[in-house]
Amino acid sequence: MKVITGVTPKETLEISEILARDLTGCEVRVNGAVHTIRDMGEVAFIVLRKREGLLQCVYEEGVSAFDLKEIKEAATVEFSGIVKQEERAPLGFEIRVRTVRILSEPAEPMPLQISKWKLNTSLEAKLNNRAISLRNVQERAKFRLQEGITRGFRDFLYGQGFTEVHTPKLGAKSAEGGANLFKLEYFHRPAILQQSPQFYKQMMVGVFDRVFETGPVFRAEKHNTKRHLNEYTSLDFEMGYIDSFEDIMAMETGFLQYTMDLLNREYAGELEILGIITPRTDEIPQVRFDEAKRMVAEKYDRQFRNPFDLEPEEEQLIGKLFKEDYGADFVFVTHYPSKKRPFYAMDDPADPTYTLSFDLLFRGLEITTGGQRIHNYQELLDKIAARGMETEGMEHYLAAFKHGMPPHGGLGIGLERLTMHLIGEENVREATLFPRDLNRLEP
Amino acid sequence: MKVITGVTPKETLEISEILARDLTGCEVRVNGAVHTIRDMGEVAFIVLRKREGLLQCVYEEGVSAFDLKEIKEAATVEFSGIVKQEERAPLGFEIRVRTVRILSEPAEPMPLQISKWKLNTSLEAKLNNRAISLRNVQERAKFRLQEGITRGFRDFLYGQGFTEVHTPKLGAKSAEGGANLFKLEYFHRPAILQQSPQFYKQMMVGVFDRVFETGPVFRAEKHNTKRHLNEYTSLDFEMGYIDSFEDIMAMETGFLQYTMDLLNREYAGELEILGIITPRTDEIPQVRFDEAKRMVAEKYDRQFRNPFDLEPEEEQLIGKLFKEDYGADFVFVTHYPSKKRPFYAMDDPADPTYTLSFDLLFRGLEITTGGQRIHNYQELLDKIAARGMETEGMEHYLAAFKHGMPPHGGLGIGLERLTMHLIGEENVREATLFPRDLNRLEP
Repeated sequence: MKVITGVTPKETLEISEILARDLTGCEVRVNGAVHTIRDMGEVAFIVLRKREGLLQCVYEEGVSAFDLKEIKEAATVEFSGIVKQEERAPLGFEIRVRTVRILSEPAEPMPLQISKWKLNTSLEAKLNNRAISLRNVQERAKFRLQEGITRGFRDFLYGQGFTEVHTPKLGAKSAEGGANLFKLEYFHRPAILQQSPQFYKQMMVGVFDRVFETGPVFRAEKHNTKRHLNEYTSLDFEMGYIDSFEDIMAMETGFLQYTMDLLNREYAGELEILGIITPRTDEIPQVRFDEAKRMVAEKYDRQFRNPFDLEPEEEQLIGKLFKEDYGADFVFVTHYPSKKRPFYAMDDPADPTYTLSFDLLFRGLEITTGGQRIHNYQELLDKIAARGMETEGMEHYLAAFKHGMPPHGGLGIGLERLTMHLIGEENVREATLFPRDLNRLEP
Repeated sequence: MKVITGVTPKETLEISEILARDLTGCEVRVNGAVHTIRDMGEVAFIVLRKREGLLQCVYEEGVSAFDLKEIKEAATVEFSGIVKQEERAPLGFEIRVRTVRILSEPAEPMPLQISKWKLNTSLEAKLNNRAISLRNVQERAKFRLQEGITRGFRDFLYGQGFTEVHTPKLGAKSAEGGANLFKLEYFHRPAILQQSPQFYKQMMVGVFDRVFETGPVFRAEKHNTKRHLNEYTSLDFEMGYIDSFEDIMAMETGFLQYTMDLLNREYAGELEILGIITPRTDEIPQVRFDEAKRMVAEKYDRQFRNPFDLEPEEEQLIGKLFKEDYGADFVFVTHYPSKKRPFYAMDDPADPTYTLSFDLLFRGLEITTGGQRIHNYQELLDKIAARGMETEGMEHYLAAFKHGMPPHGGLGIGLERLTMHLIGEENVREATLFPRDLNRLEP
């Protein structure tokens, strides 16, 4: 009986494997996509794009046992050749190619010049050719960093005793009801796509104490801005037995500290490709909502309008103020007005017009909404009634509270927004692999 | 300015913190949900349910500074008390309670006896009261193991040079077209929910070489069986530069080895709670589809019917045969007939009526479908044409091939099915936090 016993090392080597061993003078096999060919006459530089970076290979007329014309840009190939130390090569070595095996060839020339360092094209063109534009080394690096953020989120929370859950995206009712829901038919019944795992993660606090989920959420909002998506990845957690809503901010700060450290350790190459210095996370200022509004109005001589909400411009100014006056990239804005928060938000006992809640702004953009939730069954019913809402469709959610729930709270982080400001982009689509917006449903 | 500096240790202790330090005789604070109260007269055992397990606390009349009647089942409390070594306690110690702080109280008695070791109720009742039934220690342990599987999948693949991606669930067309798609309206345009990240992960092989995704997939199938769900979590990967489709099976075997090891290391408590011994993964037999059919027909004296498909009963018998004859829990069935595989499957050059593909059966149940894909643009067009299919809606997918793609392949693993057979259940809903099926859209 033939058996499979697991992963065995490949004969073809990755960049890190060549760097880790001293293979100077040795014959090696490497594969990759032909990123560029620079023909200098008797020699030619063929740069292979590999998952770990770009690898300089050298074709030498009379030495390489094939015709340079056989190699096309965007082909995938396997070279065999000799490792040679070469100071001028970006990696400090190059491969002097002996033989080639063509693995695949393109049918047509590239629609974009992906081998340029900076992909010099419009966002529209990038998104229309997503499978191609992401082959650009800088574009690709953005999503490696996005991986690092998600990975940091999970690894940090595993270490803090959280359990990962997978909650359904199809539902009969939404966690927060009402507008902005995509609707569909589910075997002759009306259904919706969840705009948040809110109800589910709260219910699971009664089971696991601390839970998190990283998954898609869906919002049928008709916003067409640089910071809105109709489908995005939400990093959600919810934790029980909190002493105060500051525990939640502390956990988020811990996540950011862990993740920036992870990026600097394991994604240093990508940070360098994009010229990014990770933001400070050792201490994050917190300021009350009303105080932040006042500070901004004063410093920037701005009219104080709607006392119950922050306009996007005000968020930007809060970011600017805290950067200028405190050198802070992040700021927690706390105690949002109750009327602007969902029914399950816990009101501040000291002044119930405000809530024990917060947003985290990153360089003036809201990337997180969180706070303490009501855990008392009757209090929840009372607040639902006071808002003139119905409990219909919330029976399962309410049952968790009816049968006992600890004090708890949590938050949701927009992965693409966090990525966007980390990589210094101004449009959230730049930080989304395949964005979904009012106009875009493909690719 | 007030600042948040990260996570600081709680004054209340978790079980592992008490076990790690010698706190005998010390006063500690612990919190949790009141799981059971056993009143013995002058003393009472109050078992707290904490995320790490059950903690035995002892109320002593005259010593504990409160009335036992204050403590209700399903309340959440914070006790302060003295740690005492006690051999008869499940953890080897107990807490002699001095004072209590009630954190929350239930409004009504429990609908299920969750404190029983085995929750003695129907699947329907469990699912109807999901937020409650999962508080049972055995039920909860199942989903801790499910976390371990997902975690093992990701951690193993990170180590193998894979990049994690988030692909959209809303689309204009499906990866594999046709039936079984949930349809919805997307800002006055028709849209679907993806039944697989297939097209996206293949496109991303041209970018990252190796990619994976763990996320929800949606299937509008009208199957009402013990092994079908209409929404489930798919563990998907796709890898470039493969030498053969056996590379994919080797990677999956590596994942299973890594994950079983992780479960035995980090989830030993949960394995013990459920009485699970992890299956052997050191070597996994592989057998051709036609050969497996023949073996089963012969051994179990079974009529050889449809030569192009495996019936569920045949899969079960293959599982049985390989268990009986080879002691194997897993078996790779390879070379499925081309007509039963999607257009992008690579046909076997040695006999194009079969494909370079496989299913992985776990105890007679298909938990994975995978294989090598066509990477040549023209070959892909030819196969699409030969099947009488249209390329409309596949332009973006095909563009990736037009501009060069390495030889590649991948697979998708049904997380709930893998969990179900690991925990020894017969219905996939037992391994799904909130199942979605023909009849169930709530909770």
